[in-house]
Amino acid sequence: MSAVLDIAMRARTAATELALTTTAVKNAGLMSAATALDAATATVLGANARDVASARDNGTRGALLERLTLTAPRVAAMAQGLRDIAGLPDPVGEMLEQFHRPNGLEIRKVRVPLGVIAVIYEARPNVTADVAGLCIKSGNAAILRGSATALHSNTAVVNAITPALDAAGLPPHSVQLLDDTTREGATELMRLRGHIDLLVPRGGPALIEQIIETATVPYVIDGDGNCHIYVDAEADLAMAGRIVLNAKTSRPSVCNAAEKLLVHADIAEAFLPGMVTTLEAAGVEVRGDARSRAIAPSIRPATDDDWGAEYLDLIMAVRVVADGGAAIEHITRHGSGHTEAIVTENQSTARSFVARCPSAVVAVNASTRFTDGGEFGYGAEIGNSTQRLHARGPMGLRELTTYRIEVWGDGQVRE
Amino acid sequence: MSAVLDIAMRARTAATELALTTTAVKNAGLMSAATALDAATATVLGANARDVASARDNGTRGALLERLTLTAPRVAAMAQGLRDIAGLPDPVGEMLEQFHRPNGLEIRKVRVPLGVIAVIYEARPNVTADVAGLCIKSGNAAILRGSATALHSNTAVVNAITPALDAAGLPPHSVQLLDDTTREGATELMRLRGHIDLLVPRGGPALIEQIIETATVPYVIDGDGNCHIYVDAEADLAMAGRIVLNAKTSRPSVCNAAEKLLVHADIAEAFLPGMVTTLEAAGVEVRGDARSRAIAPSIRPATDDDWGAEYLDLIMAVRVVADGGAAIEHITRHGSGHTEAIVTENQSTARSFVARCPSAVVAVNASTRFTDGGEFGYGAEIGNSTQRLHARGPMGLRELTTYRIEVWGDGQVRE
Repeated sequence: MSAVLDIAMRARTAATELALTTTAVKNAGLMSAATALDAATATVLGANARDVASARDNGTRGALLERLTLTAPRVAAMAQGLRDIAGLPDPVGEMLEQFHRPNGLEIRKVRVPLGVIAVIYEARPNVTADVAGLCIKSGNAAILRGSATALHSNTAVVNAITPALDAAGLPPHSVQLLDDTTREGATELMRLRGHIDLLVPRGGPALIEQIIETATVPYVIDGDGNCHIYVDAEADLAMAGRIVLNAKTSRPSVCNAAEKLLVHADIAEAFLPGMVTTLEAAGVEVRGDARSRAIAPSIRPATDDDWGAEYLDLIMAVRVVADGGAAIEHITRHGSGHTEAIVTENQSTARSFVARCPSAVVAVNASTRFTDGGEFGYGAEIGNSTQRLHARGPMGLRELTTYRIEVWGDGQVRE
Repeated sequence: MSAVLDIAMRARTAATELALTTTAVKNAGLMSAATALDAATATVLGANARDVASARDNGTRGALLERLTLTAPRVAAMAQGLRDIAGLPDPVGEMLEQFHRPNGLEIRKVRVPLGVIAVIYEARPNVTADVAGLCIKSGNAAILRGSATALHSNTAVVNAITPALDAAGLPPHSVQLLDDTTREGATELMRLRGHIDLLVPRGGPALIEQIIETATVPYVIDGDGNCHIYVDAEADLAMAGRIVLNAKTSRPSVCNAAEKLLVHADIAEAFLPGMVTTLEAAGVEVRGDARSRAIAPSIRPATDDDWGAEYLDLIMAVRVVADGGAAIEHITRHGSGHTEAIVTENQSTARSFVARCPSAVVAVNASTRFTDGGEFGYGAEIGNSTQRLHARGPMGLRELTTYRIEVWGDGQVRE
């Protein structure tokens, strides 16, 4: 039996028990795991230093290296994340529906775990603790397939928390790290139909493409964020300026950062020159269409490739549009379905934009950066769905569950 | 552009409008379509007669021919089905959640249509009307890809209802029949990622296998029903007998018919001889393990292949098990995740069985045959999900929707 299948079969056994494990035991496990992770800080930082040194030797730098690097406060934040998840309501057992039929049958829909959840993710060791915590709390067994670049870090985190989970009475193998970080190992994982109930790929377009073409297991795509802000003719322009600056510059490397700015033609002259100056002062390279460049000449020309791009960087492309309908058309054509925002004081315009927007999340007079499990009060998130099936937007505990339908009778048969 | 892509692009345009169409217009369209279908009865029956004649010439017989054959009452039932769907609550716009965050943001989860739904189905012309009706009511554009065997019938049904839908003000191309019934056409449909938001394959294992290996669009598997009934030591044996007989014989060709009977060892001698006699008198071939055959010698030997089989016929396989735990083990190993039932007077045994059962639907003291959208009060169903992601069990209107997340602010930015 291959190592990947072996892990998956152990995960199934764990999942069967985890589905029946009480909230108290799950929470005790999470609290113990947090304590154990705190206690293992030096070991985790030592392992992480090896990963960081190798990555640096291999030429990794900038945001990628920053995401890989752990510090004592970051390990403490991971442990606190586990405690926060322990504090969230347990979704399992929630009665979603309960009704009687005329023949006396009582039908109940009860929330239950999905089963075995696998996550393929980049070199971000904090994801290891987040995913483990969310899966445990939602009663699912977790298979973690991190990046080779973070293998020492991930191993140290998992080695710290799993003895604590076991000691607290959780089923063995509830959380497993796949140490086969080859592409072949990932491919095998994607094709374990019947063994994996949900695969969440967190990665770039190449991983998503591989999943779509290769996976036979159910998956939810955690996709790109080519997020737009539309500034309407009736916007509070000062508010629009604050929102655009925040959405673009507060953390440009994440998927909920704004990449595109659509400006209503009627206020383009009043709004764009100041906005572009502000963005450029914050280090943003602003690109744009001919109409925007005629108004703010420092804007560089955008190409057709710009409209579909997720920069994840201090770049923003601007386009002047006729109205909200034209903004929706642009978003429908070029967007990635993640998050869009409108800034307007006109409630009717806002409602129309929201109703027509094809994306998972639509913000009105707020930054795109609020699309986040933590900001929504879900605790951590296992990913952000840009597809329509099963879940949309930030995926917290409830998005890691399904339901069982119970039919309670006293001898009913069908005519 | 290929015919399949052309249809999909027209469906997207229709879906965008349908999502904004009022309940009143959708219901008026469904009522008009019902009237039009009634009026077209003779035409539909004439087209169906051609399909039936061809199928008979090609050797089709039995249940397959019966499912293909329309009669005036069956056409009337299809029309009534459309009226029934008009009478169901509109799921679109339902507020699933609404809450405020400490920073003043209001977050709303609002139910919205999935978009474009494609259904691949067998030679059952009544499915054409059911799927069209469910998709329209839930605000989705429908692409119907029926069997070549039913092409004349399906074309007649769609030609009857679409002018009525158009006249009632629904978007053109809300319901389209794909008249390319080749395997290549189906393959192309399965790979129209970005164009199809949900594909529901209703068919046998070969179709499911093709979907799993080939599809790039999101799908929900409408899978086999290898349904079990477990008769506990504390069952009311008379009730058990009625339930088993009903679940096996009331309609053996459908997926919610029971295929397997698991009997607690303690009551096997009291229960099996009479049960087997009753089943055999109803024309059922009973197969079984050595223990059951020692008790009821008319039982024929079961082979290993029997335990995983979906007979869809008057055959039932019996096994004597040690207890409910052994029954769950058997179901976990051999079941298809559709529906299982337990017959017991012991509530604690029932609760334990329900909690451990891996299937979508679990019935207590009721026939497996209640797993049905109509029996659950959903109106018609578009399929029955045997997977865990997105939806489980009968899929009615709500299972054809997703949600949009709205973030309403007054200028909030993220720290």
